[in-house]
Amino acid sequence: MIDSSGARRGCVVWLTGLPSAGKSTIAEALEAALVRRGVRVQRLDGDEIRTNLSRGLGFSKDDRDEQVRRVGYVAGLLERHGVVAISALVSPYREARDAVRASAENFVEVYVKCSLEECIRRDVKGLYRRARGGEIANFTGISDPYEPPLHPEVVVETDRERLDDSVKKILDVLAGKGCVHG
Amino acid sequence: MIDSSGARRGCVVWLTGLPSAGKSTIAEALEAALVRRGVRVQRLDGDEIRTNLSRGLGFSKDDRDEQVRRVGYVAGLLERHGVVAISALVSPYREARDAVRASAENFVEVYVKCSLEECIRRDVKGLYRRARGGEIANFTGISDPYEPPLHPEVVVETDRERLDDSVKKILDVLAGKGCVHG
Repeated sequence: MIDSSGARRGCVVWLTGLPSAGKSTIAEALEAALVRRGVRVQRLDGDEIRTNLSRGLGFSKDDRDEQVRRVGYVAGLLERHGVVAISALVSPYREARDAVRASAENFVEVYVKCSLEECIRRDVKGLYRRARGGEIANFTGISDPYEPPLHPEVVVETDRERLDDSVKKILDVLAGKGCVHG
Repeated sequence: MIDSSGARRGCVVWLTGLPSAGKSTIAEALEAALVRRGVRVQRLDGDEIRTNLSRGLGFSKDDRDEQVRRVGYVAGLLERHGVVAISALVSPYREARDAVRASAENFVEVYVKCSLEECIRRDVKGLYRRARGGEIANFTGISDPYEPPLHPEVVVETDRERLDDSVKKILDVLAGKGCVHG
């Protein structure tokens, strides 16, 4: 679907899930797939966000909610200008995610689901090990809660399906919403 | 100038100047003029920024520089996607502005120049009165420095020229850079 100005519709794609569930991997693969399809896309993830938007924020509920608010605001601005913005934050609290949903025009919540056991096995950044050793407080899944989405637009199960299949599920939803050609 | 994808070139338009110099007024008029010309534009100004990006930041040099970094980052993201992003912050420190300049592809610094006497006379938000009464510390122009740009792309003098003329100066520079038709 192309709007009257010739631009495709923007979207906020919000990946949420436990640490090491595979959010960044999916965000990168989804970004690449969208770029191949000629879609304007912006990934909001990683060091760039930590340096430029989240400096000084920690892992308390307030700080996490503030991070979600900031990234959600930026994603919404990009969406307004026809960009598919992809966020990849643990974003463990339902209420904060739902506030982003309410402020976006076109919101696709992707629950990146993976068993805690498998996340601990992967432990991409060695953080679970440190959290279980008591070195890190407020660690989602260990000492802090994770509230799974109740009605996500997409559920991907990274411990059960191939990356390509997870990406395809998201692309299909984006196609249905007119953000990418099916 | 239209790029190969058919989009106009994005830009970061950075308005800087004393409190009450007229930054927001110019930002709003410039935004309206660009919208009339069919340009994708996003103003980064006012309560929306304070709520969504700057919450908790004060007026120390570090906090002001952090605000400039955040807004500069967001403006740069928008620019990358073909949007003319207009920032309207006092942004009193040259080094912080120059860092945004260095990170943008296409940066137009607009020095919104107005004599301190005239800014105090206008005192749009009543802040000069409170600053001079000692109620507000770190107030640019009174108790904190303002470092004017050394080589701004545009200087507008809001105590000497009409709003329309100030906006036209900026539009002319944007036209020269291919962000808007001349």
